[in-house]
Amino acid sequence: MTEDEKAIRRLVADWFEATKRGDLDAVLALMTDDVVFLVPGKPPMMGKPAFAEASRAQGAHGQPSFDGESTIQEISVHGNWAWMWSRLAVSITPPGGQAVLRSGHTLTILHKKGGRWLLARDANLLASA
Amino acid sequence: MTEDEKAIRRLVADWFEATKRGDLDAVLALMTDDVVFLVPGKPPMMGKPAFAEASRAQGAHGQPSFDGESTIQEISVHGNWAWMWSRLAVSITPPGGQAVLRSGHTLTILHKKGGRWLLARDANLLASA
Repeated sequence: MTEDEKAIRRLVADWFEATKRGDLDAVLALMTDDVVFLVPGKPPMMGKPAFAEASRAQGAHGQPSFDGESTIQEISVHGNWAWMWSRLAVSITPPGGQAVLRSGHTLTILHKKGGRWLLARDANLLASA
Repeated sequence: MTEDEKAIRRLVADWFEATKRGDLDAVLALMTDDVVFLVPGKPPMMGKPAFAEASRAQGAHGQPSFDGESTIQEISVHGNWAWMWSRLAVSITPPGGQAVLRSGHTLTILHKKGGRWLLARDANLLASA
């Protein structure tokens, strides 16, 4: 495994850990400023401020608890850019509510800036499990 | 616009034209052998033979008619690899049936092999319109 691939796997692990502990600043530090998130049936979420706003809105009535597992299927590194696809299963439980299970795949573009890999574009194909 | 970007736009146009006229061989010529298609709620479709089989199964009771429009939002070329995301709206009408409209986004990885750009990985986030 190359150093770049190791660093990308670490980024994915860091993202999960930061999300689990509800540390929005740590998650924001793992994405490019111009990040784009694509999901089915919604307009694209473009830019770090939009992600921050959506996360804060989701946590406005108490932080949902999050658990999940990502299995990277393929990483392909080309200079300062890389793409990856993963199998992902997540469980999100709103405060006092029932856990919602979602599973599926993600296709992700990563960009190395200042020696650090960051998430740049992400297509999230998760459906209700 | 660079020559690579022009060639990628031509690939997208060729894909649409070949799909519209039901020319499976022409569509297959536009993807890598190890192509992967990701869609919500289904296992990944991996490899050109799997795409061919699924297309033939879909057309077993007569060729569905297809129309659609793709608006490329961003193309980013890095050597022999590129990624792109697009807004896509399609209409698929089975023989004697009602048109099904679907719209949303795609995130696509492209690979240049032997001087030709091919579709290599594709996440299709289309939802019923």
